Amino acid sequence: MTTVAAYAAPAAKAPLERTTIERRAVGTHDILIEIKYAGICHSDIHQAREGWGEAIFPMVPGHEIAGVVTEVGPGVTKYAVGDRVGVGCFVDSCGECAQCAAGQEQFCAQAVGTYNAIGRDGEPTYGGYSTHVVVSERFAVRVPDALSLDVAAPLLCAGITLYSPLKRWQAGPGKKVAILGLGGLGHMGVKIAHALGAEVTVLSQTLRKQEDGLKLGADHFYATSDPKTFEQLAGSLDLIVSTVSAPLDLGAYLSLLRPGGALVNVGAPEEPNELNMFGLIGGNKILAGSMIGGIAETQEMLDFCAEHGLGAEIELIRADEVNEAYERVLASDVRYRFVIDAATI
Amino acid sequence: MTTVAAYAAPAAKAPLERTTIERRAVGTHDILIEIKYAGICHSDIHQAREGWGEAIFPMVPGHEIAGVVTEVGPGVTKYAVGDRVGVGCFVDSCGECAQCAAGQEQFCAQAVGTYNAIGRDGEPTYGGYSTHVVVSERFAVRVPDALSLDVAAPLLCAGITLYSPLKRWQAGPGKKVAILGLGGLGHMGVKIAHALGAEVTVLSQTLRKQEDGLKLGADHFYATSDPKTFEQLAGSLDLIVSTVSAPLDLGAYLSLLRPGGALVNVGAPEEPNELNMFGLIGGNKILAGSMIGGIAETQEMLDFCAEHGLGAEIELIRADEVNEAYERVLASDVRYRFVIDAATI
Repeated sequence: MTTVAAYAAPAAKAPLERTTIERRAVGTHDILIEIKYAGICHSDIHQAREGWGEAIFPMVPGHEIAGVVTEVGPGVTKYAVGDRVGVGCFVDSCGECAQCAAGQEQFCAQAVGTYNAIGRDGEPTYGGYSTHVVVSERFAVRVPDALSLDVAAPLLCAGITLYSPLKRWQAGPGKKVAILGLGGLGHMGVKIAHALGAEVTVLSQTLRKQEDGLKLGADHFYATSDPKTFEQLAGSLDLIVSTVSAPLDLGAYLSLLRPGGALVNVGAPEEPNELNMFGLIGGNKILAGSMIGGIAETQEMLDFCAEHGLGAEIELIRADEVNEAYERVLASDVRYRFVIDAATI
Repeated sequence: MTTVAAYAAPAAKAPLERTTIERRAVGTHDILIEIKYAGICHSDIHQAREGWGEAIFPMVPGHEIAGVVTEVGPGVTKYAVGDRVGVGCFVDSCGECAQCAAGQEQFCAQAVGTYNAIGRDGEPTYGGYSTHVVVSERFAVRVPDALSLDVAAPLLCAGITLYSPLKRWQAGPGKKVAILGLGGLGHMGVKIAHALGAEVTVLSQTLRKQEDGLKLGADHFYATSDPKTFEQLAGSLDLIVSTVSAPLDLGAYLSLLRPGGALVNVGAPEEPNELNMFGLIGGNKILAGSMIGGIAETQEMLDFCAEHGLGAEIELIRADEVNEAYERVLASDVRYRFVIDAATI
């Protein structure tokens, strides 16, 4: 066991504060990572404030972790001291079930979240707002040299959350893809969809971020507050990826799809939506959900981002700014991801 | 123009009564069909009673039509007098758009319904509760000799409505497929999914139809009124096709799917559903709609049904029993499709 510094929420809705936590000893297949950067994901706030249900406290959030390996267990084969690595949303799974075999470890019934979870050893897990973390080498991914660790950190959640559905639902040349919501998730969606060769449209509440959207790689930018948007784009899109964490007018967005098109939700609203089935039936349309991605796909995403020079757009903060950053995330006042400099913890 | 006998609803919610209508002269590419049988689809009732919105009256319902060609226009190449043919849910489309080119004529913006629609000539269309109909040969399909016309009629809507999503969502060997609702649509779903090689489960409100379900080809039969069903089948199904025309507890049915699985709705409830996005996100699940199928796929379905000996289970009625049949459909008191003997019109 090692005592390390961390920022934790002592209770639901309480401000985060500096504290210390215990990390387990480095086991046979474990690596010890010196965390360099940790991204702040909207889901950190949902969980720290119990918006998604009862949570475990004290909570050290953070599942967008980038750092350097400083120690390896005797059975480790994939990494060596000095390697640049990342850790995403989960840190364990059974390794034997159909989901694990299919590289979809995030859906293993025994998958263990990076924080706000109980590990298979019975101990609570603590996330990336900390100086160090110990994980099995199976749940680390390699950060290619072409990516700086600070802009790579948000890829571990925001990047894979968008990459996986864009690949599964075939964003690419000849496809018209819209990204709904231009925030931490959405801005990576625009970059990745553009790099995949799709014709990219941003659907944002207003035109306030239009200049940014076009710089990030969008071909078109529409305001969803303007009813004309829904007339102009009716029946034209192959794929919409919604990053919005609030209930949507699903019928309105489904009407923008061509027959056979898909609206894929990666945002996780706390309230239910209303859905009229006619919006799906007329046009054989699809409404799907998507949740991060498996380890192999996360590595594939990092390699893709490195190849195309796609890091996140970040605002680097000191650890003691985290509570202020949470408020700014809730006010959509960040372009586009806060990243904690772990040297300041 | 030819005057022919038909059963029509003179106004919304009025009983159907015997009347006469005009059929257009047989044009260059038209065929005249002597209707032998017409199936009664739940959507006939929705439309005759304006459950789906304002409708056109008088209305001659019927889009499950089987008959024999008795006259062909000079440009007809596909059919000859004496051929056994069927007509389904639509009788025209533009023939030039992307949807028509893709064999998805049902989604052509100019598609014309078999009844309760205005044709491209500006005249209202009248459906299959009639002795004759004139259609372009493009919108007729061939009924293989191995299928009797009476049991073939319901395939033109109920058959293709199930065949298309079962094929698109890959029902077949090694797949666990559930059919939700064992009525006119559902019973064809069981037959087709079984013939495709899937392991078929019926989900019905009660076990009342269990014996029927197993005879139709189901491997398993569960009552949705029993909460244990949802425990026993949790996370086990690859595909659910819902034929239910009422709002569903979508979260409960999505929980029966394995990760990546799909719940496809072919029923058309008049009221909206409530949907919690977490049911889709956790497990990358899919909620989709499906609406009949194109002409080529409808022919493929008829050929498949002929090859596997799959006709509908029908109760043949006289035309003057149609109003009583409507009440029995609404009471789910039919096993499994009423078919009007057009000789009694």
